[in-house]
Amino acid sequence: MPTLYVAPGACSFGAHVVLKELGISHDLAVVPLRTPGSPIFEVNPLGRVPTLKLDSGEVLTENGAILPFLGDLKPEAGLFAPAGSLERARIQEWIGFLNSDLHRAFRPVNRPELFHPDASTHEAIRAKGLEQLIALLEFVDEKLDGKTWAVGERFTIADAYLGVFWSWLKRSRPELLARLPNLSAFGNRFDARPSVQAALAAEQAPSERQAAA
Amino acid sequence: MPTLYVAPGACSFGAHVVLKELGISHDLAVVPLRTPGSPIFEVNPLGRVPTLKLDSGEVLTENGAILPFLGDLKPEAGLFAPAGSLERARIQEWIGFLNSDLHRAFRPVNRPELFHPDASTHEAIRAKGLEQLIALLEFVDEKLDGKTWAVGERFTIADAYLGVFWSWLKRSRPELLARLPNLSAFGNRFDARPSVQAALAAEQAPSERQAAA
Repeated sequence: MPTLYVAPGACSFGAHVVLKELGISHDLAVVPLRTPGSPIFEVNPLGRVPTLKLDSGEVLTENGAILPFLGDLKPEAGLFAPAGSLERARIQEWIGFLNSDLHRAFRPVNRPELFHPDASTHEAIRAKGLEQLIALLEFVDEKLDGKTWAVGERFTIADAYLGVFWSWLKRSRPELLARLPNLSAFGNRFDARPSVQAALAAEQAPSERQAAA
Repeated sequence: MPTLYVAPGACSFGAHVVLKELGISHDLAVVPLRTPGSPIFEVNPLGRVPTLKLDSGEVLTENGAILPFLGDLKPEAGLFAPAGSLERARIQEWIGFLNSDLHRAFRPVNRPELFHPDASTHEAIRAKGLEQLIALLEFVDEKLDGKTWAVGERFTIADAYLGVFWSWLKRSRPELLARLPNLSAFGNRFDARPSVQAALAAEQAPSERQAAA
């Protein structure tokens, strides 16, 4: 049975939702990030999630690889599309954009210290980052106009991934939601899915147990 | 015949090399970036390359979508691998890493003004960015150890994309090459490929014509 390494609130949530959507039996390893000695470093030298350890012992990293790989495990579930199809390319287009643009746009807003050592610069770095983040979110909102899910009427691996950023936005920048009606409607549909609720419960359980210990 | 939109020196070079490797007839649109009125805005609202316009009129963006789509057009060429295979996932893992990490790591080094409006902060932003860029390049160098190409003995779409960053490095930070022996050896193999030389010549030709006009 494969093991998915996740951190609560991290971008690994999308792969976790995909496992739940597909009903694939798996172990879940909930790990801390940026913490020396975290078990994530045993499987991924960059210490990142999601990381997927397969039965063969092979370790796969990167949302851009894990989401398509999982989608291809059960093509009949329709979370992805056949190789060579334009629909598959559209799903990959979303994943590429989310991976390279939207995810990274949160970084100066949330972690300005990665860009300049002097704390007096951080407010302006956050502000400039927020401008760019809002522009990308508005682009996403336009792309979702008239659609139920990212590429149309069917929930795909792109939606599982987009849901991550919806969650981040809802948690950290709720004041932006009013100007993003299509993304908000998407997010409400996302939150209502049983797979999303099950993945959320599974990621929260370990820390609740820890807190109770 | 599809049209590939590229900008000389941009990350669209990888898709261009793949077209040459596959021998797919195409039109090439060499466009300026970040220039109001550039033809790129007619096909891509974000003004980015690569952008691929298909015969159907559909427009595909994102390296994460275009490279796999092209690879799947001629599976027999072996630039990609069958859906569901671990080899395909490894190729996608490289593309995901290059797309979300290595490409973005050049940004604070080359364009610090995107992170803070005050020019007095830019030197420190560049320096911090360079530290992170070097760490990623060293990670790439380790991954290439003992390999001819990114995932083994066969040139794939991941190599066409990795070659972009090799080109950037060689041009803008040649002083780093001595500490990156595996990446440098990869780069020399990359530069020697007829597809790379043909793509380079095709991207340079228009500006030479322009200069002559």
